[in-house]
Amino acid sequence: MIKCLAIIGVGLIGGSLALAVKRAGVCQEIVGGGRDEAQLCKALELGVIDRYEINIATAVHDADMVVVAVPLGAMEEVLRQIAGHVRPDTIITDTGSAKGSVVAAARAAFGAVPQTFVPGHPIAGMEKNGVEASSVDLFEGQRVILTPLPDTQMEALAAVRTLWQYTGAEIVEMEVEHHDAVLAATSHLPHVLAYVLVDMLARMDESQGIFHFAAGGLRDFTRIASSDPVMWRDICLANHVTVLSMLERFSSELASLTAAIRAADGTHILSVFTRSKVARDLYYQYKSLVPKEIQ
Amino acid sequence: MIKCLAIIGVGLIGGSLALAVKRAGVCQEIVGGGRDEAQLCKALELGVIDRYEINIATAVHDADMVVVAVPLGAMEEVLRQIAGHVRPDTIITDTGSAKGSVVAAARAAFGAVPQTFVPGHPIAGMEKNGVEASSVDLFEGQRVILTPLPDTQMEALAAVRTLWQYTGAEIVEMEVEHHDAVLAATSHLPHVLAYVLVDMLARMDESQGIFHFAAGGLRDFTRIASSDPVMWRDICLANHVTVLSMLERFSSELASLTAAIRAADGTHILSVFTRSKVARDLYYQYKSLVPKEIQ
Repeated sequence: MIKCLAIIGVGLIGGSLALAVKRAGVCQEIVGGGRDEAQLCKALELGVIDRYEINIATAVHDADMVVVAVPLGAMEEVLRQIAGHVRPDTIITDTGSAKGSVVAAARAAFGAVPQTFVPGHPIAGMEKNGVEASSVDLFEGQRVILTPLPDTQMEALAAVRTLWQYTGAEIVEMEVEHHDAVLAATSHLPHVLAYVLVDMLARMDESQGIFHFAAGGLRDFTRIASSDPVMWRDICLANHVTVLSMLERFSSELASLTAAIRAADGTHILSVFTRSKVARDLYYQYKSLVPKEIQ
Repeated sequence: MIKCLAIIGVGLIGGSLALAVKRAGVCQEIVGGGRDEAQLCKALELGVIDRYEINIATAVHDADMVVVAVPLGAMEEVLRQIAGHVRPDTIITDTGSAKGSVVAAARAAFGAVPQTFVPGHPIAGMEKNGVEASSVDLFEGQRVILTPLPDTQMEALAAVRTLWQYTGAEIVEMEVEHHDAVLAATSHLPHVLAYVLVDMLARMDESQGIFHFAAGGLRDFTRIASSDPVMWRDICLANHVTVLSMLERFSSELASLTAAIRAADGTHILSVFTRSKVARDLYYQYKSLVPKEIQ
């Protein structure tokens, strides 16, 4: 039982977590904190939180556990406002999409990363945002990645695991660097590619009516380019080392394929396309054939 | 009324066109032609065609109209087998995904592009293939682009328009170069990006278990990487001039964005991401709000 859970940043992620914790009936009070009073008011009206505080130090003062669910760009500032205002045994976790930068922010804010701090990242859909989009089922069947450090307290890790289990998510642990590499490859890089492509097409569209003749494939391919630009700018900046390394790797692969087209090297082109199709078909076939709990 | 329609290459596209023409009851006989006798047999069994000929010269001998629905890589060879074996007034059209290369193939095969030749491209889903996937509705509500040349006969163009109207498709005319630029931008380039990305991830996956943590966004983003590799190799080779120009343009835009991330230039990153999101949201909002027939 958590006596007091403070959620800093009550948007889609913070709000959905609050709803799942309420449904589980394992928390006496949920306090919302953040600088957006209109959003906190709405969260209170919707019954997502029990009360709110604009002052973050006040919001976390009585908390047994603090979840920081603010954009990556605000993470360090918020952690600084928390530091010195929580009890030594208060467990702190976050929901940022990049973990190396959050660990660095915690180190900067607290002097050293508290042993009660458990970096976390729920992988959930992001097409809507705001507390009014919150859903008690948002994390059901999704993955939450926790990236504890070597000296993170076992008790803190166990408590954050338990918290996320109330949402119906599957909890996975990995190292900070592995998380950032995996996410840069499968999420951050594809978002950058989609954004750059759509921006290029939009500018061509003015003169050539490009979009009008686009088939269904483009719609799916560019769906992620409808994601929140501020959030994705923050992710690119926060995870820049790994994102840059993926961008370099991709650019180099693209240059090889471009060279093969220029040289009319059908064998090279076909080998890339075939490996790609086989990998994708096999992976999604695997996903559809193997029950999720044993994948 | 068409007395004899010859369809060379009775796969998904040729087969679906045959079914729609049969449903319309506007053709006395449909002859299938091509080198894949097993596929032609199946087409006959399924009632897609009325008879077939392995010899292409024989298949087109009595035809009023010939539709060449073979892969781009086989186009010139098939047109050479047609040349000299059709009547001077036989109308010829094709279904290739790139048009400049088909016009060049026709010029090579016939000495000059026949005035009865109308290059065409039905934009339809390609996830399945083979005649057994044929559907009378495949082109319903889809677009068919025709790219007549300056000296293409009006009668031939009108006849090919009418043919496609039987399928329920919307027919659009544009110049060969415009077609190839639009398709390179909205279809060929995205396919290349998806193939290169999945191939890169698949090779990283062996060491780092990348795919296991991929969210739903990647599934949609990479769907087109499950397309037929041979068809897409052919498209890259056939439309190489325009595809290369789009690849160069994209690589240069990607290099700018990469430089902005390296320089932590949040303003530049945000402007690209915001323009992209606005363009995509507006375009698909437009698509959902404006009735298709007046878009």
